[in-house]
Parts: sequence; C-alpha cells; structure tokens
Amino acid sequence: MRIAIIGAGALGLYYGALLQRAGNDVRFLLRRDLDEISRRGLTITSPRGDFHLEQVKGYATPAEMGQVELVLVGLKTFANHRLAELTTPLVGENTMVLTLQNGLGNEELLAQIHGPQRVMGGIAFLCCNRGEPGVVHHLDQGRIRLGEFSGGLSQRAQRLAQLFEGAGISCEAVADLIKARWEKLVWNIPFNGLCALTGLTTDQLLNHELMRGEVRALMQEVIAAGNAQELSSPIAEDFADRMLAVTEGMGSYRPSMMIDRQEQRPLELESIYQIPLQRAAARHIAMPRVQLLHTLLSLGEQNLQP
Amino acid sequence: MRIAIIGAGALGLYYGALLQRAGNDVRFLLRRDLDEISRRGLTITSPRGDFHLEQVKGYATPAEMGQVELVLVGLKTFANHRLAELTTPLVGENTMVLTLQNGLGNEELLAQIHGPQRVMGGIAFLCCNRGEPGVVHHLDQGRIRLGEFSGGLSQRAQRLAQLFEGAGISCEAVADLIKARWEKLVWNIPFNGLCALTGLTTDQLLNHELMRGEVRALMQEVIAAGNAQELSSPIAEDFADRMLAVTEGMGSYRPSMMIDRQEQRPLELESIYQIPLQRAAARHIAMPRVQLLHTLLSLGEQNLQP
Repeated sequence: MRIAIIGAGALGLYYGALLQRAGNDVRFLLRRDLDEISRRGLTITSPRGDFHLEQVKGYATPAEMGQVELVLVGLKTFANHRLAELTTPLVGENTMVLTLQNGLGNEELLAQIHGPQRVMGGIAFLCCNRGEPGVVHHLDQGRIRLGEFSGGLSQRAQRLAQLFEGAGISCEAVADLIKARWEKLVWNIPFNGLCALTGLTTDQLLNHELMRGEVRALMQEVIAAGNAQELSSPIAEDFADRMLAVTEGMGSYRPSMMIDRQEQRPLELESIYQIPLQRAAARHIAMPRVQLLHTLLSLGEQNLQP
Repeated sequence: MRIAIIGAGALGLYYGALLQRAGNDVRFLLRRDLDEISRRGLTITSPRGDFHLEQVKGYATPAEMGQVELVLVGLKTFANHRLAELTTPLVGENTMVLTLQNGLGNEELLAQIHGPQRVMGGIAFLCCNRGEPGVVHHLDQGRIRLGEFSGGLSQRAQRLAQLFEGAGISCEAVADLIKARWEKLVWNIPFNGLCALTGLTTDQLLNHELMRGEVRALMQEVIAAGNAQELSSPIAEDFADRMLAVTEGMGSYRPSMMIDRQEQRPLELESIYQIPLQRAAARHIAMPRVQLLHTLLSLGEQNLQP
C-alpha cells in the first residue's frame, strides 16, 4: 500500500518504518531529520529487535509526495492549523486519512477538510522517543485501536488492522472510536499533564501516595465524562485500576507532554484538555481536577512563569 | 499589658511593635534578628508612617521571658510541634494565649497544652514582609478578628480588641471564631497555594482568565466546606467576589506561602490544607480542586522535584 506519514515524530517514524519493512511504499514528510534520513536511512531500536532501513523516502513538502492510499497523521495537535496544507496534496478519490494524534477534535478537523467518509481515527499505545537524527527508540508497547470517524465497524477498518498486524503492529478495529478515544484520555489526562507540570516521571507520581490518589481521581473524572457521551457501552468499572497497573509496568516513563515541556515545545492542551472539558460541560459533567490541571498547564504556555 | 510574642516573623514583629509603641510591655522571642534588634532596635516601614523602637526586649529562650498576661503566637504552623516548649514558661494562672497563626488546628493544640479556657484565636489580614535584620515592611492592611476558642463573645475578647485598637490595629471581637477561620481560608487556600506552586503573584493569577476562574472555584469549594461546619450563619453569598475585589486592591502581592517556598522553608500545608480537607471530608463535602492543589504542593515538600 502507498502510505504517507505526516508528522514524522517518534510515532510516525516508528509505525512508518514497520510498515515499510513489511513491504509497503511509505513516504515520510520530514523536517529536522530530512537530511540525515535521506542520506543514511532510519534506525529503530526496540526490545523486540533493532532494525535499520537503508532506503527511506523522505520529502520536504507534501506536494512532492503524490497521492497515496493511506495518509497516516502523527502530527502534534498544536500544529493542527497546518493539517489542510499538509494533507491535501496527498488525498485522491479513495484515500483514507487515519489520524493517530492525541485527544479529541482531530477527526473533526480532517472531516472538514476531506469529508467524513475519508476519515478514520486510531489510538496508539506506544512508548517511543526520538534519539539522535535518524534514530527512534521504541521502548514498549505499540498497540493501535482504530475505527471510522462516522462510527461502526467497517470492512476497510478491518483491512487496515490487518495491514498493521502484517507489519508487526498489534491492531484492533473498533466500532466505537469515541469510546476508544475517551479510554485513552483516562491515561493521557492525568499522566501527560501531571508529568509535564511537575517534571516527575509516571513511576515517581505513582510512588507518592497522595498523588496516586489524585491520578485515580482524575481518571474517575474522565471516565464519568466519557460515560456521558452516549458511548456504545460504558467504560468498564475497573478501567482506572487497569490503567494504573499498565502504567506501573511502564517503569520510569516520560509522557510526550512532559518531553514537549522539557524541550520547550507547546503542549497539546486543546486536544487533550480543552475539547474534552468542552464535551464534558456540554453533558453537564464537571471535571474540577482536570480543569485546575489544565489551567496550571496553560500558565506555562503563556510564558507567565518566571 | 505584659505581652510575649512567640514566633517573631513579620506578623509577630509588626503587631508587637505597635503594641509596644502604645505603651505595653512587649517581650519578643527572637531567633535570627536577636542580635540586630537587641543592639539597634526594630524599624517598621509602613504606608501609615515608618517608626523605630530604640529599646526592644528580645530573648533567645522563653524561660528568660517570665510569665505574661498575653501570649501572642505568630509561629509558622510547620513549627507547631514546638508550641508546648515555647509557650509553657510564659503561662500563669490568668494568661491568655492568642494564636494569630494560619489555618485550622492551632487553637486545638494550644487548648491541649494550656486548657481551652486560656485559648483565643485571631485572624490577621496583614500584608507584611521582613526586610533586612531588624526591619519589617508593612505593606497593607493589618485588621484582626479574634474570638474565644470555646465560642461566644466574651468580655476579655472585647477588652483585647480594645487593646489592639488602642495600638492602632483595627480589631473586631467575633462570637464565631470557626466561621472567621473558614472565611480566611477562602483567601488562603487559593492564593497561598497557587502563588507558591506557580511562582506568580496574586495579580498575575487574577489577570489570567482561566486561573481567575480556578481561584473563584477554589473559593467556592472552601465556602461550601465551611458552611457545612455548623457555623452560626453561612458565609455570605458574595464572599468570593468580595475577596477577589480585596485581592485586586492588594496589587502585586506575594502570599506568605509563596515566600516560604521561594526561601525554601517548609509550607504550612497541615493547617491550611490538610486539616480543612479532613474537616470537609468529615462533613462529606468534596474539595477536589483543593485536594489536587494540596497534593501538588506536597510534592515539593518531599524534595521530589528535580
């Protein structure tokens, strides 16, 4: 399959590399790694085995990339104002646009640009960081859950899941993408924000007794808000406990938002906090802790902190 | 009146100086300012007029101070484990012990040590910082509301209010000390914590639209918890608005907890957060924002932050 990777951060490079290794024609829109990857290829280090791709198709602009069958969007959501410009040259009659971005609102933006019938969304459970130019460190996990923006379990979603599975990526097609997104927020909202705010890793938060309680309470707020969104079935009772257990298994992990803050990039506040808060408020669900956390994070964005 | 000042920070030095200037026999337990004040006296700068006391009675230990009629406790509450040791030598048959400390739980501790009949509590609305040794900068306000730990409007509370008034300190005796304490927490809980956590002054918080909303929401949580404590009458509907207006009048203010953190002292978390949270929980009132704020503050206390 001809695939374009837009937003080639750690996530885009990792999944793109696996898809190319499985025989797909993968084209990466690159920025800071363009020279290095064009000259020397792409290296993935992983507990599942390191590998190196000698020849990688890197491009500086989407116009050079041509139309593809699948656009995989891994862009940071704070760059969503560039979505139309970056994806339009790639999209033809039968192109599928799959966003693996964080949080809520991304499928809606793509649907406005390309029509809802082209848009799918996926949630990636991936612990992955960039190393030196041309190197990505896969740390743990990598599972994707994907589904139709318009809802329902489609044939093409299942085919896409098979494509990923064939590339060694554990992947499940889901009928209720909204539910999958809210379930991911149950993890993202506490850990991304608290780690970015405090500079502490996930295990440091969980080892602090009071903070572990706050993580759980934040999760419960998100679960209550998610369950007010007319999901196909409620998020499971024990979901917060399962997320806490999964996180413990991840060891000393730095979530993407913590890295963004440490590297003085903007944070994905709109997709991970603002839009979820709006959707909760629309259903008259209060998320007081989420609101305070979002506000504390937003202070840093305005460079108000001394 | 013979008065001992225990905990001669900005608050103790300021009120003690005013009481001495009005003719009282004031004795200060001093630590870092002992030499300077013993040699050169005490200087107060104030928009109401600077003044200097040439002769100030400073002591290194309470044993040297002798018994007094009034013990005024201005100790930081994180030093409350030293209350018995620091006050016992000062207390005779008819000594009144008045704590002007922050938050909840201080009268209870003093009542355990000296018996409830000796204990009074007061809330100071005072913007005051220490300068170089022997100098205190009074910035604004200074009003005290005081009352009996055992409740009710006593004769001696009214006499004490007159004593303060006579020294130029606006002072009101109140029948419901618990209510006065919770009203003060409506200010202390948002501003002390948020300023300490973010390093922003009160006006910077209020100028940030989302944060202003969080300040108000924190105030509402405290008001709801206070109103569940069987007060003589509920905290007024417009109390949060009035506190916001008062705070705007204070300009670019650094609350005591912000200074404590900047100077790497411990924070008064027990009296300002923990005990109020316990009293709210005992009445089945949730304070989710207060809880998250307290937890974020407590992280810094354990030197977990990198």
